[in-house]
Amino acid sequence: MRKFTRLSPGVFNFHKIWVGKQEPCQVRSSSNARESFAITYSDFGDPRKVLRKESIPMPTELESSQILVKMLMAPINPSDINMIEGTYHIRPKLPSHVGNEGVGEVVDVGKSVENFQKGDWVLPAHAGWGTWRTYALCEESSVQKIKNDIPVLGAATLAVNPCTAYRMLKDFVPVKQGDIVIQNGANSSVGQCVIQLAREWGITTINIIRNRPDVDKLTSQLKDLGATHVVTEEFASSREMRDMVASLPKAPMLALNCVGGKSATELTRFLGQNGVMVTYGGMSKKPVVVPTGAFIFKEIRLAGYWNTQWNALNSKSPEKVKMYKDICDLMRAEKFFPPESDLVPFEKFEDAVAEAMVGFRQQKKVLVMDDKFF
Amino acid sequence: MRKFTRLSPGVFNFHKIWVGKQEPCQVRSSSNARESFAITYSDFGDPRKVLRKESIPMPTELESSQILVKMLMAPINPSDINMIEGTYHIRPKLPSHVGNEGVGEVVDVGKSVENFQKGDWVLPAHAGWGTWRTYALCEESSVQKIKNDIPVLGAATLAVNPCTAYRMLKDFVPVKQGDIVIQNGANSSVGQCVIQLAREWGITTINIIRNRPDVDKLTSQLKDLGATHVVTEEFASSREMRDMVASLPKAPMLALNCVGGKSATELTRFLGQNGVMVTYGGMSKKPVVVPTGAFIFKEIRLAGYWNTQWNALNSKSPEKVKMYKDICDLMRAEKFFPPESDLVPFEKFEDAVAEAMVGFRQQKKVLVMDDKFF
Repeated sequence: MRKFTRLSPGVFNFHKIWVGKQEPCQVRSSSNARESFAITYSDFGDPRKVLRKESIPMPTELESSQILVKMLMAPINPSDINMIEGTYHIRPKLPSHVGNEGVGEVVDVGKSVENFQKGDWVLPAHAGWGTWRTYALCEESSVQKIKNDIPVLGAATLAVNPCTAYRMLKDFVPVKQGDIVIQNGANSSVGQCVIQLAREWGITTINIIRNRPDVDKLTSQLKDLGATHVVTEEFASSREMRDMVASLPKAPMLALNCVGGKSATELTRFLGQNGVMVTYGGMSKKPVVVPTGAFIFKEIRLAGYWNTQWNALNSKSPEKVKMYKDICDLMRAEKFFPPESDLVPFEKFEDAVAEAMVGFRQQKKVLVMDDKFF
Repeated sequence: MRKFTRLSPGVFNFHKIWVGKQEPCQVRSSSNARESFAITYSDFGDPRKVLRKESIPMPTELESSQILVKMLMAPINPSDINMIEGTYHIRPKLPSHVGNEGVGEVVDVGKSVENFQKGDWVLPAHAGWGTWRTYALCEESSVQKIKNDIPVLGAATLAVNPCTAYRMLKDFVPVKQGDIVIQNGANSSVGQCVIQLAREWGITTINIIRNRPDVDKLTSQLKDLGATHVVTEEFASSREMRDMVASLPKAPMLALNCVGGKSATELTRFLGQNGVMVTYGGMSKKPVVVPTGAFIFKEIRLAGYWNTQWNALNSKSPEKVKMYKDICDLMRAEKFFPPESDLVPFEKFEDAVAEAMVGFRQQKKVLVMDDKFF
């Protein structure tokens, strides 16, 4: 299992190096392989126990509307783990493939397929597609094309975290240049995407993180990414924080919450009149608690964001096309980078899953299906 | 202090009788009185201690844009009490008049006043106007006209409770005929207004009340008003409640919360996908607590409603004009009644305030400035 060696102290620079190294990807054709492999499970339970690697014969011929996709990279997200455990809001029919996110390359197409050709990159069009496999034989309608001139890691991790950040900044409060967004769990994968998009869009960010031994290092990493203010949860509850926020030219109108509990309550205190808090995670496993007066007198509003649902309702909407274009443009211009990732060969998925499950980890595990990337 | 004798077991019938008795009101001219009286205070504190009745000489001449209003009736609302205590979100400059709601009759107008004439009924155009007085000399812009062919008690209590109910049913989720609204504190003054408006608009209501010795009586009173379902807080937490709500043709998309705490959490459990809970009170004095998953997977939204703020932003908006017309039309047709009220002579305001402050009371205290109403 290879970890990226950080060559500079800043996440930002780290990603620059990673992206700079990466050639636009053309995977060698391997469609003449005899078999493919997929991670599957037949019972809900501990992912360290219920997952198995299944051998699937390669198709000899494609049906007319099918495409054959060679998977390139697929991240391990918390929702994958929860889905296998059976604790996620969606419980797939078993037996099931694993993996909701990832990028693949089209290596063969059926006779009637017009919208895809060999070499195209594709992302799953819906949750539960099963990205943790070496090849996927699927209907062309089950994937969507993405330009293959962005870093492959960026493509593999585009659909969940960056899109979640993008939609939360766009769909709840019309935040514009000069506005202020406050978020907790700011070093989460989504948090890092929020910081980068906000930086590009001229939005000030107030970023709350948990205190930790290397808090100065994390603070400077997030500032390298473009964070305006980085404070700890402890500071966020202090008088100094209230003074700091009060000294800003305007009040935050959007708060992004992935923690819950006291941390979420604090976020609402900093919102201005009619501000909105969007909840997209609950890392503390505590509910959101908000005093009545904040609703009545400050008229704050609370909402939630679920990327899976957004995708289900926007499979090919103009908003989705624009979002993908915007994010890919930023990636291409080296202005948007995926969070620090730990690339793991597909064969070692068991180790990667076990490591992903050990508490809070900053590095996202990403399964890699081709040696080319090592 | 006279209480209405309930002549029938149902609140609905009770109000019918009350309204039927009431002639369209023409107060005798008393503008030749020597002095008027106003309830005022110079220090925030216990309303039983800080209020005083002040004598104010009657004006000898009106300025050109002024009108002289003889107050008819003014309710004692919780916000009046909290404002005097200094615990309300708005702290008026002291010394201050008391009373945010009430109806008065124009008894004299200045030379340039064109929009008002003697006999017109008026409501305050903004909070803090000071309705607890016998006469008010004011700018014509500080009041708004209302038709004087509705019951005077209805006019005196129109601006807060009915308007709160109306706006909550209109402004958050487009509820329409056949939709379902769920509310706690359903026997509150606002709750009774919600029940009546929903009944007229073909909306099913699920009404949650606290258990009490006479719960059957209250249940039948609310059903007389038009409540579809009436259940206790205990029942609302039960399996039977979940089954009952699940058996309805659709899920509630709007929940109205004036309690907070566990009761508010329960409300959110019954909301359908994308449903909204509007908080307008916090009788339990406990915050609103909602699990993270309700925001993310059910995408419920939480908002608040503050009538004072709505009025400040809509002093003469078309929405306000239409709302007043709609509610007055229903009153005139004897389809909308103010909550059961206890009419108290203005002189006995101290007793009325003291009684209003004793815990939870179903009967709203309403100060009456003219003997005609007794």
